[in-house]
Amino acid sequence: MTVNTQVLLKSRPAGKPSIDNFKIIETKIPDIQDGQILTRTIYLSLDPYMRGRMSDARSYAEPVPLGGVMIGGAVGIVEQSKNDRFEEGDIVVTHTGWQSHPICDGRGVRKLSPSSAPISTALGVLGMPGMTSYVGLKHIALPAEGETLVVAAATGPVGSTVGQIAKIKGCRTVGIAGGAEKCAYAKSKFGFDNCINHKSTDFADELAAACPDGIDIYWENVAGPVLETVIPHLNFFSRIPVCGLIAQYSMTELPSGRDYLPLLMRCILTNRSRVQGFIVTDYNSDFKEFVSTMTSWVENRRVVFKEHRIKGLENAPEGLLELLEGNNFGKVIVEVSRDPTI
Amino acid sequence: MTVNTQVLLKSRPAGKPSIDNFKIIETKIPDIQDGQILTRTIYLSLDPYMRGRMSDARSYAEPVPLGGVMIGGAVGIVEQSKNDRFEEGDIVVTHTGWQSHPICDGRGVRKLSPSSAPISTALGVLGMPGMTSYVGLKHIALPAEGETLVVAAATGPVGSTVGQIAKIKGCRTVGIAGGAEKCAYAKSKFGFDNCINHKSTDFADELAAACPDGIDIYWENVAGPVLETVIPHLNFFSRIPVCGLIAQYSMTELPSGRDYLPLLMRCILTNRSRVQGFIVTDYNSDFKEFVSTMTSWVENRRVVFKEHRIKGLENAPEGLLELLEGNNFGKVIVEVSRDPTI
Repeated sequence: MTVNTQVLLKSRPAGKPSIDNFKIIETKIPDIQDGQILTRTIYLSLDPYMRGRMSDARSYAEPVPLGGVMIGGAVGIVEQSKNDRFEEGDIVVTHTGWQSHPICDGRGVRKLSPSSAPISTALGVLGMPGMTSYVGLKHIALPAEGETLVVAAATGPVGSTVGQIAKIKGCRTVGIAGGAEKCAYAKSKFGFDNCINHKSTDFADELAAACPDGIDIYWENVAGPVLETVIPHLNFFSRIPVCGLIAQYSMTELPSGRDYLPLLMRCILTNRSRVQGFIVTDYNSDFKEFVSTMTSWVENRRVVFKEHRIKGLENAPEGLLELLEGNNFGKVIVEVSRDPTI
Repeated sequence: MTVNTQVLLKSRPAGKPSIDNFKIIETKIPDIQDGQILTRTIYLSLDPYMRGRMSDARSYAEPVPLGGVMIGGAVGIVEQSKNDRFEEGDIVVTHTGWQSHPICDGRGVRKLSPSSAPISTALGVLGMPGMTSYVGLKHIALPAEGETLVVAAATGPVGSTVGQIAKIKGCRTVGIAGGAEKCAYAKSKFGFDNCINHKSTDFADELAAACPDGIDIYWENVAGPVLETVIPHLNFFSRIPVCGLIAQYSMTELPSGRDYLPLLMRCILTNRSRVQGFIVTDYNSDFKEFVSTMTSWVENRRVVFKEHRIKGLENAPEGLLELLEGNNFGKVIVEVSRDPTI
């Protein structure tokens, strides 16, 4: 095994990304140096934020450089180590991105205990998406007993976890998802009190009927028409944590038509609403608390999760494109190589 | 003196209000009952929020009923009292609205000490607009040393006070105002580091040049094109207290053209910005602290103010229409009757 397969960013997308924006190469694995580890990637996480890193617009993180390896979280097994913290066979979470045999210096790498939960959960409910849900609710959404929370992408890793934590906190939870199958799943498996299909022609009426007491928390994962439909239902002192905007990530210019900015601004003023963006890494100090709390919820099945598996690193580009279209059904995990723990 | 002149809301405006939405009547003053006071209005305050009360759209406060007296803050002198808390000759602040000789039961009425400051300031820098500035900065804007604050309507009672308090807190302050005269005044009298004319054809470039380190706090009084121009300059962790939206109060439908909502949402996410509406009355518990602090600032001339006087209650409707067009220059005060303290 001397070859590292890498998926590179070949070109920046103008609008919707395509397969042609990626390039797959194979390189010889070099010898590792003191302090380094070589891992074999088992699982790669695909997440909506990756679309942002493909562009060079100013944001909270640097873009992936052209010709660079696509970034991303991964779970791997240590194959070689010249770092005292790691030994061969350790299962680790890394930020090594879209490659099969990365070398890194161990910074930001965390060891997993395979006995406590399936190791792929370190990329989902017990990883970045779960932590995102946890800190956004704790610091921004502030769910209170009896409040109504609405979240879109309700069967995705963030939306499903947000709904379940909000339920634990005593909220009435209304999901929004694309399609009847997802909506049924959101209710039966994730415990949403209701879930509305945003592709339905009666979406606006159905949302209104599902929220007879208005909306106290709207967790923003998507923006676009869903947001426009939600705004009129927001309550006094409502909170809108802005976690993602998947419907507009590939927008190349502001759409023409009606300008909805005055609608949001009026809502914010008359309701004293709070709309606040956040990035999970701003709350790293909460990580231990999150892992401890979420692990117990997962063990007690108070929080469950759904994965959408893709086989083979070479299919990661297509997987991301599908994810950005909302064609995933659960947390997207690329199976890069055999999982030795199952 | 047996007549009370009242300005009533005759009809609700569709879009921009006009003189025809008001009706002036004279009624005989009845005898006051136990617990009541009769005041003679000296000064009436005109404020942008009054536009909202003319409409019956859902908001944080009830609309003025059709045929009802227009609401508003006033300073008056007690002419008759059957209330133990007040005696003839007391100078008081009331919420008795657009009328010359109101009767009220004394609830929410506050006595003024004419020796400490001109009594009209109880409607401006030491009243609701000053308090609005104070609590919005304290609870939402959170100005820090070295940050850049931008505020529109910079020579109005809120904007000018916001700029001066932010300066006390160590901010760099950039005002936005309509016209060169207002901008010059904002800099020379209110101490803004810079002030940009939003009517200038080079407004966007001038604003960019005035904010070389971006914008940490944008105090929203106006919305519309000013907001659209500000958004691209907002910094990481910026705060946008939403205090007023004068540019859109008379909007009857969402404008067509470009949709700026995605621009704001992207800004909120990538910068982790916080956009939050507030109403001064949500912070009534801060009133004593506000009066004490602001009185000392006014006495030390660390905070100065400018009034725009209108003579005669009958001219209040026209005064409000001009205010909504931005044609005032300072805090609008209607001189309803002689001020006995000067």
